[in-house]
Amino acid sequence: LEPKVKLWIEKDGQLVLGQYRVTLLRHIAETGSLAQAAQRVGWSYRRAWGKIKEIEQNLGAPLVHSTVGGRGGGHTSLTPLAERLVALFDELQSSVERDVIRNFQRSFHTDA
Amino acid sequence: LEPKVKLWIEKDGQLVLGQYRVTLLRHIAETGSLAQAAQRVGWSYRRAWGKIKEIEQNLGAPLVHSTVGGRGGGHTSLTPLAERLVALFDELQSSVERDVIRNFQRSFHTDA
Repeated sequence: LEPKVKLWIEKDGQLVLGQYRVTLLRHIAETGSLAQAAQRVGWSYRRAWGKIKEIEQNLGAPLVHSTVGGRGGGHTSLTPLAERLVALFDELQSSVERDVIRNFQRSFHTDA
Repeated sequence: LEPKVKLWIEKDGQLVLGQYRVTLLRHIAETGSLAQAAQRVGWSYRRAWGKIKEIEQNLGAPLVHSTVGGRGGGHTSLTPLAERLVALFDELQSSVERDVIRNFQRSFHTDA
């Protein structure tokens, strides 16, 4: 038996950040491109862009900044806030998983 | 911002216990009736019975025992194992929620 947990962050009962959105942000950081990040998570560019705008609106702060044109044809990167959110989400997910496995094993072996 | 967690228990990659199944078990304990418990969670009797049998097979142990007939028309109750599983699941869910909220608040206020 193996306990599993899923983590997400809400604001006023609405999803702000879940695993998919964090993965999108991580791919933006890795690729420097919203188009490529969207492709990696299997979303359309339009959907990915909409999600980013939705999260930004919920947080009241920007998550990405873009430079247009130039040699590489533009570049999108995460703001420091977005970088911290991605790191925090991953940390929380890991610590929650670690805690629940430890608690489960302790309780289940004691009780059952 | 509010972190949320969902807990479930798998065996070999398959769901064994989640919030719905635990709720079904709790209603069996409360009503003494699988039919009434099924109705409370919005499942057919057949579906509820199937879920119980599936969990029992995964655990290799019985979760309910039934007495047939008599004055009240039969009675279904949880085995001690099932009672412990329900209590353990609720405890784990609560402790995971408490931990994640504490960790989130600490990290988010420190970092952002």
